[in-house]
Amino acid sequence: MSKMKGLKCKECGKTYPAAALHVCEFCFGPLEVSYNYDYIKTKITKEKILQGPKSLWRYQDLLPIEGEPTVGLNAGFTPMIHAKNLGAELGLDYLYLKNDTVNCLTLSFKDRVVAVALTRAKELGFDTVACASTGNLANSVSAHAAEARLRCFVFIPADLEAGKVLGNLIYRPNVVAVNGNYDDVNRLCSEIAGEYSWAFVNINIRPYYSEGSKTLAYEAMEQLGWRTPDHVVVPIASGSLLTKISKGFNEFADLGFVSPVKTQIHGAQAEGCSPVAAAFKEKRDFIKPVKPKTIAKSLAIGNPADGFYAVKVVLASGGVIEHVTDEEVVEGMTLLARTEGVFAETAGGVTIGVLKKLAKKGLFRKGESVVAYITGNGLKTQEAVAPALGVPWNIQPSLANFQEALKAASADTSNKERGVQ
Amino acid sequence: MSKMKGLKCKECGKTYPAAALHVCEFCFGPLEVSYNYDYIKTKITKEKILQGPKSLWRYQDLLPIEGEPTVGLNAGFTPMIHAKNLGAELGLDYLYLKNDTVNCLTLSFKDRVVAVALTRAKELGFDTVACASTGNLANSVSAHAAEARLRCFVFIPADLEAGKVLGNLIYRPNVVAVNGNYDDVNRLCSEIAGEYSWAFVNINIRPYYSEGSKTLAYEAMEQLGWRTPDHVVVPIASGSLLTKISKGFNEFADLGFVSPVKTQIHGAQAEGCSPVAAAFKEKRDFIKPVKPKTIAKSLAIGNPADGFYAVKVVLASGGVIEHVTDEEVVEGMTLLARTEGVFAETAGGVTIGVLKKLAKKGLFRKGESVVAYITGNGLKTQEAVAPALGVPWNIQPSLANFQEALKAASADTSNKERGVQ
Ligand SMILES: Cc1ncc(COP(=O)(O)O)c(C=O)c1O
Ligand SMILES: Cc1ncc(COP(=O)(O)O)c(C=O)c1O
Ligand SMILES: [Zn+2]
Ligand SMILES: [Zn+2]
Repeated sequence: MSKMKGLKCKECGKTYPAAALHVCEFCFGPLEVSYNYDYIKTKITKEKILQGPKSLWRYQDLLPIEGEPTVGLNAGFTPMIHAKNLGAELGLDYLYLKNDTVNCLTLSFKDRVVAVALTRAKELGFDTVACASTGNLANSVSAHAAEARLRCFVFIPADLEAGKVLGNLIYRPNVVAVNGNYDDVNRLCSEIAGEYSWAFVNINIRPYYSEGSKTLAYEAMEQLGWRTPDHVVVPIASGSLLTKISKGFNEFADLGFVSPVKTQIHGAQAEGCSPVAAAFKEKRDFIKPVKPKTIAKSLAIGNPADGFYAVKVVLASGGVIEHVTDEEVVEGMTLLARTEGVFAETAGGVTIGVLKKLAKKGLFRKGESVVAYITGNGLKTQEAVAPALGVPWNIQPSLANFQEALKAASADTSNKERGVQ
Repeated sequence: MSKMKGLKCKECGKTYPAAALHVCEFCFGPLEVSYNYDYIKTKITKEKILQGPKSLWRYQDLLPIEGEPTVGLNAGFTPMIHAKNLGAELGLDYLYLKNDTVNCLTLSFKDRVVAVALTRAKELGFDTVACASTGNLANSVSAHAAEARLRCFVFIPADLEAGKVLGNLIYRPNVVAVNGNYDDVNRLCSEIAGEYSWAFVNINIRPYYSEGSKTLAYEAMEQLGWRTPDHVVVPIASGSLLTKISKGFNEFADLGFVSPVKTQIHGAQAEGCSPVAAAFKEKRDFIKPVKPKTIAKSLAIGNPADGFYAVKVVLASGGVIEHVTDEEVVEGMTLLARTEGVFAETAGGVTIGVLKKLAKKGLFRKGESVVAYITGNGLKTQEAVAPALGVPWNIQPSLANFQEALKAASADTSNKERGVQ
């Protein structure tokens, strides 16, 4: 007996071995890992989890690898912050932030999916790993490939933020900047995946890769004292993260670790790339691809692979999908930083922007708990927020000079940027 | 009974209450927290630590606060990485990296000292916090002041890296850029501290602040299975970190948690600012201040407050203090990233550069364990390493284009930057 039965088509149910496959040959539906939950039940306990490593591997029994983890041993198990200051501004007593801005190795939730994907890629015998990425995935694949001594190709849109480009190059992978948007990059990579036997973590290894996101649900429940939150707010690019968070909640309920799930799952997109939010609003059961134009580049997927499933999951949970403007993204980033000391990237600004919008609409009731997923670090997207932040006071190194500046700033109530905070 | 007796002069031994004091009125020596270890012994056990929070507060019994922690609840307890790849390149079987590049909230070891300092500042009744900083400290004070709802002033040299400047502004503190180097900033802040009753974390709160660095020793011992390493390599700016790591080792030995300490403590500086390394080499018992000129700006303190004590500690341990050139700093950063997937800032490059130098000199014997302290994240000092990293391949989104680029890169063995890795 082993924990994985194999892969299974999400559409027609046809089964496949647990190999590097991702599309059903019969109906072209996406494949998903199917588990022997009866077997897993004999292995996993809350106590075992509590005694496990301080990483996502404490949930190893529910992750799609056969042996022991070999890559990304320190990924996951990031802090859960009870956000009292931000909560007070939004009228929420039980607002929590899942802080993946400090994920190991590369400061985004992608370290979770990559730890799982590369461990599995090694099990499947690959010596070269690759990905199509909006930025964070490439950073994480590059770093973990270095750790795992795997050959590495990462493909990114040519117009990414400087920090995300450098955040690949430093690890010495082959970085391919493609003149086009993510959807162009993804199409190209699908072709390349047909030509080379490389492990493209979000293409042919996608069924394993995507399971890593379940750990964001597991950790939330464990960190809230083995409870599901009443609401979660999740950023959407391809939609994979959101659907897998839902799966994680349900798995813990099925195992009896938490009560049956009533969590409302809300999705967050940037207005300039909101094909999933649009499908939700227009009650469509298909996604109309768009051309992305937003500062939230990590979420800029115009033709999201799991968009359809994300809408389904949100609807079934009683949640909503909202979008925010680029200005609201920046405002979300600064709001989060000045209230909670968390510097998130643009995707975090999207999440906080939508959280605020939903709070204003009165979606959250008194006493309800809300978890906002903060999925990447602000040092990676500095250009998005820099123009809004002004500059430091500049003085000569003398007490008199400082006192003058302080007096001027105190008097200047017109200019919030330069005034005394 | 309480764990703190008060403060005590490191030079003449005169005692003071546990207030916001840092200099002895009699001999101008620095003050240090003195503890009731007999009392602490009745409170602390390994089991209690193991069951404590996954943060530096698991060592609360050895930290200088009276009540419960209120700021920086998620600081510390960062990963310890067994660096097999880098170890293999350097001929070390037991090389470990203490990875504070993912420290919470702000990706450097300063989150440790700030968590302690601001918790203590609140206990002492301050409503405004401040610091003189080479960058990381300001980032951490800004973030934690936001979290703690404290008024905040951070003082930095005007020529800091862009990421470190933005990494203050985002939290909306008062950021004062001083035209001068850190030593000018520090002098100015000492004056300001005399005029305003603010908690300057590394001036009048320094005795409490500096104790936070002990946790880098505690965690190393716990994560190595309650053992002290044979060697550590520690970057030096003011010298506080290094001396407190030594103190942490000795405290655990005194408590019986580890065998008597034999750890050789090695210090690391950048050549362009190496007053402590120079004092060590020239066997001086005083530090000659220098004018810093190095890309390792976070370590650019020309007149280090604890430099004298750092030399003493290193000598007593049988260690050495080395310096590396700016080129070796960059090489250290890329070496670490390409072997272990860890993107460290310049200070990490200094540490790895010195580690490599010591390994080459044959300082580490077969079977000995070495812990290198990686104290800050590379996304904060991008300009230091960017010029060395080249650029991505740039292609049109077509398979033919990719294959051409791949062929060209494979053929091009002259240009390592553009060749297939
Ligand atoms: C920071 C961040 N958050 C969220 C997402 C969304 O992930 P998904 O594509 O699974 O919807 C991404 C995707 O790249 C991301 O980089
Ligand atoms: C990243 C980093 N490492 C090490 C140090 C050295 O600390 P200390 O001043 O305690 O020697 C600093 C100080 O600013 C730092 O920012
Ligand atoms: Zn099918
Ligand atoms: Zn004295």
